[in-house]
Amino acid sequence: MTDASKTREDGETTLLVLDADPPPRLGGLTGRTRILHGDESTFASQLPLADVLLVWDFLSDAVRRAWPGEGPRPRWVHTASAGVDHLMCPELAASDTVVTNARGIFEAPIAEYVAGLVIAAAKDFYGTNELQRQRRWRHRETRRVAGTRAVVVGSGPIGRSIARTLEALGVTVAVTGRRARPGVHGPQDLPPLLARADWVVSAAPLTDATRGMFDARAFDTMNPSAYFINVGRGRLVVEADLLAALAGRWISGAALDVFEQEPLPPESPLWDVPGLIVSPHMSGDVVGWRDELGSQFLELYDLWESGKPLPNVVDKDVGYVPTHDPSHD
Amino acid sequence: MTDASKTREDGETTLLVLDADPPPRLGGLTGRTRILHGDESTFASQLPLADVLLVWDFLSDAVRRAWPGEGPRPRWVHTASAGVDHLMCPELAASDTVVTNARGIFEAPIAEYVAGLVIAAAKDFYGTNELQRQRRWRHRETRRVAGTRAVVVGSGPIGRSIARTLEALGVTVAVTGRRARPGVHGPQDLPPLLARADWVVSAAPLTDATRGMFDARAFDTMNPSAYFINVGRGRLVVEADLLAALAGRWISGAALDVFEQEPLPPESPLWDVPGLIVSPHMSGDVVGWRDELGSQFLELYDLWESGKPLPNVVDKDVGYVPTHDPSHD
Repeated sequence: MTDASKTREDGETTLLVLDADPPPRLGGLTGRTRILHGDESTFASQLPLADVLLVWDFLSDAVRRAWPGEGPRPRWVHTASAGVDHLMCPELAASDTVVTNARGIFEAPIAEYVAGLVIAAAKDFYGTNELQRQRRWRHRETRRVAGTRAVVVGSGPIGRSIARTLEALGVTVAVTGRRARPGVHGPQDLPPLLARADWVVSAAPLTDATRGMFDARAFDTMNPSAYFINVGRGRLVVEADLLAALAGRWISGAALDVFEQEPLPPESPLWDVPGLIVSPHMSGDVVGWRDELGSQFLELYDLWESGKPLPNVVDKDVGYVPTHDPSHD
Repeated sequence: MTDASKTREDGETTLLVLDADPPPRLGGLTGRTRILHGDESTFASQLPLADVLLVWDFLSDAVRRAWPGEGPRPRWVHTASAGVDHLMCPELAASDTVVTNARGIFEAPIAEYVAGLVIAAAKDFYGTNELQRQRRWRHRETRRVAGTRAVVVGSGPIGRSIARTLEALGVTVAVTGRRARPGVHGPQDLPPLLARADWVVSAAPLTDATRGMFDARAFDTMNPSAYFINVGRGRLVVEADLLAALAGRWISGAALDVFEQEPLPPESPLWDVPGLIVSPHMSGDVVGWRDELGSQFLELYDLWESGKPLPNVVDKDVGYVPTHDPSHD
């Protein structure tokens, strides 16, 4: 890490921020660091000047597009997101550059969000809302949450946080990951788990191994009463297959917080599919989240500057922070 | 209890059922008991014939109206509900008749329902639903649930179950009851608790002491960011005052599952108040609830017939099962 913290030429570190609105609060770096702010139009030309890159605009794929170009590259890239799929490319993966993510910020909020979606579906909150709109008093019987079964696909900190929260509500939860380990099922267990789950929660990183994993075959494996929730990445799901599964009642309903294309365009057929809840990629974003992301970067910057090991280091070959990283377990 | 289990005249017990659709499954009593089925029109004339009364229609006030009339009265009344406000009258309270309720059936489902309403409000699920209807992608920041504060008004099994479930989500919960005791605040603590609560949950029995307790003064005491949930009884709330509180933004929103008048008539102004969720008295009613209520009555009937003590005995003076009843704690 000490090598990586060396500055490019004149003793001052250059931090490039791929900006978004609102920008990060980096007052803590005043006088310590030269800060360049870039956007998608300026980014490629600024990239060779940077010792450190902060990917504040986590919706942009400017990093992935610019990285393979000419010139020096930053030795540390931090992204203000849990997923790194928007920035990874083979050249970055093969480089010595350290990539860190925002592990620790989104886990608990996303877990609450998923728990809310589960209860809302079990109790038919949206059906009640529609009946209220029609001024109709129609008593129905709803489902218990305790005693149901969930499978959470994704054994990173977000998936495990979701599992803990659902378990607190009495749900029996199985977590699946890339490889079996204590408390985590391997991929070979997924089909039987899907077949008997009441709730299927997608919280996996987007990698070559997970892209499109929720396809017609997966939905066909699920129970007709199953409810599908995606808070991971849009491209984990083959959206056309999900629409077919909902139309054919292979599953009972679904809630998507992430999409193949974001923002979801107004003309998308996903907006008004019966039984499908659409939310604008906000499950982890609670009041103050941007400040938390900014503070987290400043903490990591202090470590980096003093040559100490960084937490939240992404395994660039698999595309996420390995869970055996002891720093946040 | 042995006295109470004596039958009226011929050695056979007469069970009167104040019926509702669907009726209870009482096959377990075949050959043991004479069963009369009554409705609101026949009930008063049948009441003197009954040794035991099962109030299956828990929406009817036929018991309260007929009880003060002429003739013998049943020695045991069981209601398939948690509340007994629909059947209690001074003459029943003063009598030797034992009244039991459906304690144990509704607690956990109602707690899940309340937890779902809390998360739905914190995450603005209904706002997201409305935006989906408009095909609008509008990212917002939402609230954490963990770390917020709730006051649950009602220290019976339903209130305590709600408290446990919210605590499992990281909410700090205070429970208030008719009198202070370990873990329960007395009425004098309520105003300061209301003033700092993020969530105010009404789960009290309807008694002379609680009727209309959520009035203009109570709503005025609450924090403008507070959210009010009523799963107890409609008449705990002065509905006109709640409407004023919502219109005046004294509180941020509310969800009502119970109402002064049920079913809520189509012309009620409550149906389309901004920030008010209306549901048809269903928070405790999960699939199989009627079967559970029927089975519970049969279990109590076995005890009664063999002269054993009954659980779930209502303190008729206060209007609910006292919490020091050890049988279900």
